[in-house]
Amino acid sequence: MKIDLNCDMGESFGTWTLGDDESLMPWISSVNIACGFHAGDASVMRKTVELATKYNLAIGAHPGFQDLQGFGRRNMNLSEQDIFDICIYQIGALKSFVEISNQKLHHVKPHGAMYNMAAKNQSYAHAIASAVQSIDSELILYGLSGSYLISEAKKINLKTASEVFADRTYQNDGTLTPRNSPNALIENEDEAIGQVLMMIEQQKVKSVEGQEIDIVADTVCIHGDGKHALTFVKLLNKSLSAKKIEIQPIN
Amino acid sequence: MKIDLNCDMGESFGTWTLGDDESLMPWISSVNIACGFHAGDASVMRKTVELATKYNLAIGAHPGFQDLQGFGRRNMNLSEQDIFDICIYQIGALKSFVEISNQKLHHVKPHGAMYNMAAKNQSYAHAIASAVQSIDSELILYGLSGSYLISEAKKINLKTASEVFADRTYQNDGTLTPRNSPNALIENEDEAIGQVLMMIEQQKVKSVEGQEIDIVADTVCIHGDGKHALTFVKLLNKSLSAKKIEIQPIN
Amino acid sequence: MKIDLNCDMGESFGTWTLGDDESLMPWISSVNIACGFHAGDASVMRKTVELATKYNLAIGAHPGFQDLQGFGRRNMNLSEQDIFDICIYQIGALKSFVEISNQKLHHVKPHGAMYNMAAKNQSYAHAIASAVQSIDSELILYGLSGSYLISEAKKINLKTASEVFADRTYQNDGTLTPRNSPNALIENEDEAIGQVLMMIEQQKVKSVEGQEIDIVADTVCIHGDGKHALTFVKLLNKSLSAKKIEIQPIN
Amino acid sequence: MKIDLNCDMGESFGTWTLGDDESLMPWISSVNIACGFHAGDASVMRKTVELATKYNLAIGAHPGFQDLQGFGRRNMNLSEQDIFDICIYQIGALKSFVEISNQKLHHVKPHGAMYNMAAKNQSYAHAIASAVQSIDSELILYGLSGSYLISEAKKINLKTASEVFADRTYQNDGTLTPRNSPNALIENEDEAIGQVLMMIEQQKVKSVEGQEIDIVADTVCIHGDGKHALTFVKLLNKSLSAKKIEIQPIN
Repeated sequence: MKIDLNCDMGESFGTWTLGDDESLMPWISSVNIACGFHAGDASVMRKTVELATKYNLAIGAHPGFQDLQGFGRRNMNLSEQDIFDICIYQIGALKSFVEISNQKLHHVKPHGAMYNMAAKNQSYAHAIASAVQSIDSELILYGLSGSYLISEAKKINLKTASEVFADRTYQNDGTLTPRNSPNALIENEDEAIGQVLMMIEQQKVKSVEGQEIDIVADTVCIHGDGKHALTFVKLLNKSLSAKKIEIQPIN
Repeated sequence: MKIDLNCDMGESFGTWTLGDDESLMPWISSVNIACGFHAGDASVMRKTVELATKYNLAIGAHPGFQDLQGFGRRNMNLSEQDIFDICIYQIGALKSFVEISNQKLHHVKPHGAMYNMAAKNQSYAHAIASAVQSIDSELILYGLSGSYLISEAKKINLKTASEVFADRTYQNDGTLTPRNSPNALIENEDEAIGQVLMMIEQQKVKSVEGQEIDIVADTVCIHGDGKHALTFVKLLNKSLSAKKIEIQPIN
Repeated sequence: MKIDLNCDMGESFGTWTLGDDESLMPWISSVNIACGFHAGDASVMRKTVELATKYNLAIGAHPGFQDLQGFGRRNMNLSEQDIFDICIYQIGALKSFVEISNQKLHHVKPHGAMYNMAAKNQSYAHAIASAVQSIDSELILYGLSGSYLISEAKKINLKTASEVFADRTYQNDGTLTPRNSPNALIENEDEAIGQVLMMIEQQKVKSVEGQEIDIVADTVCIHGDGKHALTFVKLLNKSLSAKKIEIQPIN
Repeated sequence: MKIDLNCDMGESFGTWTLGDDESLMPWISSVNIACGFHAGDASVMRKTVELATKYNLAIGAHPGFQDLQGFGRRNMNLSEQDIFDICIYQIGALKSFVEISNQKLHHVKPHGAMYNMAAKNQSYAHAIASAVQSIDSELILYGLSGSYLISEAKKINLKTASEVFADRTYQNDGTLTPRNSPNALIENEDEAIGQVLMMIEQQKVKSVEGQEIDIVADTVCIHGDGKHALTFVKLLNKSLSAKKIEIQPIN
């Protein structure tokens, strides 16, 4: 058994530092690198690709809305064509940094509001999947398990990785409990790890309503910015190792 | 005999239109497309690549400083590493649009202040040439004839195209007469065409001081934004044709 | 009888020109000047304020979303506090240009998506009205007739100007027919002028469903960017003059 | 005897935090708040003004070049008019936040490359001084002691505050030793405090060449971003107190 652990990185910008990317790198298998629209600049991108190369991680592009002040977390209404275009732009920019480091771009995971909107908006999801496929039909699209990102990618025969969350609860319909609900987050680390193991081993998760529902768990999203990020990912590594679940990139 | 005629294009942005790219396309052989930093956005880039493909033009990236308000025409002091990084970013972004149109990126020509500074600043020139080579060692770097852009590119065995201007005068040392000098511009069209023909046929130009000096003319820069741009380029096409000089991309 | 004719201006940016502001200025009474977020830059703002001063127009700030590529026309989800903050910022910036020209800022009209969202979103409307009042409680808030912008402003005793459109049709509930409906636009100039006169003289408009509904018409929005903008505004001036309706700013 | 201690603040942006502004506020007398071009956004500006109000600090605008990635530290060649315009814009924006907090804008200190270039470039200095005066002739312009910022401001009867540095060495001609020189920085805290006391008490400083030269010390720049910033400013407060030198804003 195996699982991918992915983490958003390269989200510093200019003089501003965010997260301690390198400390987490030994404990994960793939990395999604910001492409300059919601975070990251050309220099941050180059350095993050170099670091990911050093730690032998699968490198993905992490395109977002062009909203630096809002960190790409504010919903924006774009046309399907504009979504396609800004994905091509950002993925292309990151791909160049990857290639001059003699690596190969491995996947694409949209960021923040673009990820969340595309999960529920077929048109956004289609635009993103089409952009990824246009650039390289071997790329893998990471998206929320059970979302339009996954189904639209499959429709055009693009490889996918269904993403699950360790620290978020699920509803009966398989969607995440909205963040503004009281029980949206799992703050107990053991519970979070229990949920991850269940998702990997049984491809099931217990919903907030108490039902066991089906879920596809190809990759687990590791949050890099919390205080306990490093502690948690180490604990998760240990638990996975105890269960003989290997941490490795998709494919 | 042959010559390349190149023109900066894709310099619209969002709701703002600049130039009438398509009207000039039948009369030139290569196009330098803005990459989003000084002009152009993802949608403009896609559309301009599609147009250039339709007219069978050699497509180049046209990276500039990240100064949208100043259109990349204001000198900025960047480190050599930053120059390298923003070139990789911009060229990579454009390259993706070129490749999803089933074309191959042909060349790179830096824009505005980056072009002018790199002509005289060895460190800038080296950073640009290195970035181009890192991305694809078959790319051609367009630079001012006789400038550091050309010599630094040659040092690392990068192909070059020495650029000359129809409507600018030259000084004895081969540099352009600064724009703030009274005789910097050639406003008479016949004179401009005469200068171009002399540069192509004899690889010489008459300086403002009256001397004939050596010049390398691989490509002529066609300005797309003047009122008479179209008239002039048609006239130039006619004159070149009369002299049996073919208009075609480098290589 | 009197009416205000307002027009969005100062929507050029850097090297890019939009509209021919000065040609329309003799025919209107107030101007809404872009503040750098969706269009306009510091230099354009200064020049537009100088022009408006020359033509003795009432000067308003025209704040928008920070979305230069989308020209502030794409919906964005911001918190109420963020809306407030970006309004203070933009209005403050424009107010300085107005004051160094020895003028007084007269009004505020939100732009594009911010205007449209605030018409229907009480929280956005409240944030904008509060920002305007915080800066100067004498300022007038321009908003769509019958919208939340007007009602939220009135709640906090802010002066308002209810805006109507010459070339847009209205529905029975007083809202504009959505642009994607076939009959959203009035393209016949005489009809458009007829609608304006009816709105001013009778404070009524005929809906697309054929009913006469109440409307408040303090100011008419003149579009500056169409081909026929100048022809139309001259014709409107003539029609208003024939009816002895004076064109002058609110209050 | 008295002295002003000023510190650059509000240099966070969006999701990115820089410095711990509030911890330093009890130990200084005036604050220069970034205005959105090199750092700071509308929300950061509002919060920083609120904090400065709470600590009863003199509030200044801290305008810079529009270069977020470079944090306004990269030289840019702008026209005198453009410098004037971007100062009006930024100062105006900050002034609104100050005024809605029922405070009065006290001073302006240009940031980074704009400060350094204006120190040596009469045209930049004149543009900045003119912008400040246009907005409010009672504002105080902070500039490097002995620089063009001070002399151009005095020419137009603008109040000035000559700024000195605790941790930088001076050359015989009164200019700062360039940062790339080995002895540019004073890293010993006692030495730095000794230099500050000498500058305040004797209006003299010992140059790197060993000469005592004249200097005007109205305000001391406190760097907020180093590790030892808080320790140093507390130590400085103690030393000033021991010498009965009061810390208070200019005028």
